[in-house]
Amino acid sequence: MSFPTDPSGATDARFIAETLAFAEGLANASGAILRENLHTRRGFHTKQDDSPVTDVDRHVEETLRTLIRHRYPGHGILGEEFDGQNLQAEYVWVIDPIDGTKAFITGIPIYGTLICLARHGTPIVGVIDHPVTSDRWTGARGQPSRFNGRPITSRRCASLSEALLSCSNPEPFGPGERAVFETLRAQTKWCVYGSSCYAYGCVASGTIDLAIDCGRHREVDYCALVPVIEGAGGVITDWEGRPLTIHSGNRLIAAGDPERHAEALRILAGA
Amino acid sequence: MSFPTDPSGATDARFIAETLAFAEGLANASGAILRENLHTRRGFHTKQDDSPVTDVDRHVEETLRTLIRHRYPGHGILGEEFDGQNLQAEYVWVIDPIDGTKAFITGIPIYGTLICLARHGTPIVGVIDHPVTSDRWTGARGQPSRFNGRPITSRRCASLSEALLSCSNPEPFGPGERAVFETLRAQTKWCVYGSSCYAYGCVASGTIDLAIDCGRHREVDYCALVPVIEGAGGVITDWEGRPLTIHSGNRLIAAGDPERHAEALRILAGA
Repeated sequence: MSFPTDPSGATDARFIAETLAFAEGLANASGAILRENLHTRRGFHTKQDDSPVTDVDRHVEETLRTLIRHRYPGHGILGEEFDGQNLQAEYVWVIDPIDGTKAFITGIPIYGTLICLARHGTPIVGVIDHPVTSDRWTGARGQPSRFNGRPITSRRCASLSEALLSCSNPEPFGPGERAVFETLRAQTKWCVYGSSCYAYGCVASGTIDLAIDCGRHREVDYCALVPVIEGAGGVITDWEGRPLTIHSGNRLIAAGDPERHAEALRILAGA
Repeated sequence: MSFPTDPSGATDARFIAETLAFAEGLANASGAILRENLHTRRGFHTKQDDSPVTDVDRHVEETLRTLIRHRYPGHGILGEEFDGQNLQAEYVWVIDPIDGTKAFITGIPIYGTLICLARHGTPIVGVIDHPVTSDRWTGARGQPSRFNGRPITSRRCASLSEALLSCSNPEPFGPGERAVFETLRAQTKWCVYGSSCYAYGCVASGTIDLAIDCGRHREVDYCALVPVIEGAGGVITDWEGRPLTIHSGNRLIAAGDPERHAEALRILAGA
């Protein structure tokens, strides 16, 4: 609660701009490491939750943590690969060094770094960085979201039957969740698979209408998506329609058009 | 049968080298068009088989057909978007202007152009071109396959439990095929989804161990993969273990290690 603000919101806007610029600097650092490792062979270890991790994941996360601690020693850090630090702080950085580690390991060029700043648990700044193609989405409270520097808006979508859907990974769905997903999918135009964070960026950019996932590991997998999608005019919540915070579950539904989001929620609730 | 050959195979090797160079020229042409359209909004039409097509698919295919007709007027052409021409010819070019049209439409940077030359129905030259990242696999009978110009070999894999699996799209599997796929998948390390032709290139490059698909539309979707994977030491067949020709079905199983291919076939047959 020590954050200085004034009735005009000017200080707040200045702080948001400063932290967004810093988050982009973090993405520059992670992107440089990931591009160095574009075609290296990737050994990996299997974590306790059965997901893989590489030395590159750890190297990226350690680098970002060092930069954050140096610049904002009072902020907390929640990352994919190491223990949380100072999580009771007003501001917490939430980072996933490689979203799409399986793609990274197999050499498939769809993986990115997710960087978020949350205040009291609510995401206020987000960066989705896709170093292979040098694509970057940014979002911050009170600003239009941007794709490669240009303001973006998500797409209106007149009906579910016209909606293009994305699902990063159909595997983690349990039987009931799979039935719900199939019900939703059957009402959309078609579905693309396997694109991790890139697909959520496309919801913000207005080339994908709906994105659904289940079992994404933790807050590190989705917090950065929230300011990007909301700042483009889209909606992203859990399957019950609740806002995503660092304390949310792991079932996501995002839409470019708020009406289609509401319709998808009704399907998820009714099935 | 008019193709001149001699006992030393020298003429044949010369012809293979010439047509591979020409196929790479075709990939340069398609890549230039696709890169021009990297961030354009993509309207699409839905074809009779319910799959989407864009004006860019058609423009690429028309361009490649024009180049082929000019250089090899006696050869046949089998493409995704237009009627086959001269398919009874000894040599037939088999082309898919965009493998991954749904990804292309949604802005996800995983789609490529597939170019194959078949002799009497058997693929002898293949190019997998991925213009977004300027990645290219080439393969030709009697030559080592290459990734971005460098010779490649597929990877040995000691057991299925260590194998990294790819499936481009789980949707077209029928109930029986899905059960078989799930049986195979459960025995592998894990599976990545959604990568179309790129994953088959990764089998050749030795970063993916197994790739399985079902319901890929036609010969245009797989013929180019055959010389690339075989020339790297891998194996690609239909689910019954038969070689893929322009007359094959649409169920593919590829492996970097021939022993794992044989093991996968036993699972596919037994389930």
